[in-house]
Amino acid sequence: MANPTAAILVIGDEILTGRTRDSNLHYLAGKLAGAGIDLVEARIVADDPVAIAAAVRALSAACDHVFTSGGIGPTHDDITADAVAEAMGVGIGPRADALAILQAHYDRQGVEFNESRRRMARIPDGATLIENPVSAAPGFTIGNVHVMAGVPQIFEAMVASVLPGLAGGAPLLTQTLRVMRPEADIAAPFGALAAEYPDLSMGSYPFVQGGAYGTNLVIRGTDPGRVSEAMLRLTGLFG
Amino acid sequence: MANPTAAILVIGDEILTGRTRDSNLHYLAGKLAGAGIDLVEARIVADDPVAIAAAVRALSAACDHVFTSGGIGPTHDDITADAVAEAMGVGIGPRADALAILQAHYDRQGVEFNESRRRMARIPDGATLIENPVSAAPGFTIGNVHVMAGVPQIFEAMVASVLPGLAGGAPLLTQTLRVMRPEADIAAPFGALAAEYPDLSMGSYPFVQGGAYGTNLVIRGTDPGRVSEAMLRLTGLFG
Repeated sequence: MANPTAAILVIGDEILTGRTRDSNLHYLAGKLAGAGIDLVEARIVADDPVAIAAAVRALSAACDHVFTSGGIGPTHDDITADAVAEAMGVGIGPRADALAILQAHYDRQGVEFNESRRRMARIPDGATLIENPVSAAPGFTIGNVHVMAGVPQIFEAMVASVLPGLAGGAPLLTQTLRVMRPEADIAAPFGALAAEYPDLSMGSYPFVQGGAYGTNLVIRGTDPGRVSEAMLRLTGLFG
Repeated sequence: MANPTAAILVIGDEILTGRTRDSNLHYLAGKLAGAGIDLVEARIVADDPVAIAAAVRALSAACDHVFTSGGIGPTHDDITADAVAEAMGVGIGPRADALAILQAHYDRQGVEFNESRRRMARIPDGATLIENPVSAAPGFTIGNVHVMAGVPQIFEAMVASVLPGLAGGAPLLTQTLRVMRPEADIAAPFGALAAEYPDLSMGSYPFVQGGAYGTNLVIRGTDPGRVSEAMLRLTGLFG
């Protein structure tokens, strides 16, 4: 049976303007591979409600799961929850359980639960909350869309909250053979081997080290026996 | 006048499976901001001809420029040139000038110009070559799509080849005020200030340092006078 598919949607002007280098995409990619969920696409859009809603609609229709990162904080530029509600065709408003979680958190800290903090309890109708063990303000799942914070520490904690509850498939196994030969010298036999294993994915990644050309040959698949067999063949060719 | 818009399309199973962390997107984002070209979307798709062609079509229609990264090497998994030709509705084949560039390069190196290396001279009909001062194999521009290599050193050299030839707009200016207060404490006045400057973009990025909450307040815009004026107001509020 094929693995479930997923997409990630990163929301953030700070990435598109070059101010910040995203790390959530790379983190989630590794976690999904381990869980047997195939990440088939990633998108990054600006802090623009129309762009966010359009991307959520497209990815939600195309994949089994969509994970979003960013735009659920207390400031005016945090517009993800509203855009997701719009995309999913539901209303949005403050919710009692989210308010209670936040109230308890700020009471413990002795911090005022002000209007800006209350914004973080606005949740689309019918959503399930995603626990945030770092700073309390919850993410949420609505339909097949999992909405999470952009701050890496919180994003990673939310992934840990949501991932165990999703049905996974066979974990993706990756084996790499590093050869100190230019890619074009191994391309023909490597391509012929890949054609013999249509159930596996084989990729070739060139690098330069100390002025010499090398290539990482990567074999990916979900069947450990097939991956090992192909790697044995590959090692026989170039090892 | 509004700045030209751009999208980047990264092609690579190695990013989506979590093996590699992409750096080309972040690099290009910074260069485009400096050139006055607004990066409005980024996508990462797998080494899949249908997914690549669909993304090229969508982004080419939506933006003034599309930059692609990856999949133009000599191996069987390098399928970007064919997918882009398909998306743009043109043929593809070996081209004399590209063959000559590669032949000269491999002659100088004393390396055999084999069949795999010849694949890199396959260029969509009607395209313009993009110079590759690192390893010779050219990228190309067809329509508004600029097709470049995935290896960061080569990608960056190709950006340097292609960017000066594109009409830019006003460079994006970014100023940041770092305050050691949690984002929710400054959200209301910061949002009110942002509403006074609809021509600027203001974002708020929380961080934790030594257990204390802080926020980077960022103002972006193309008019130096407006950006400085807004930053002066911001500093008056929180500095």
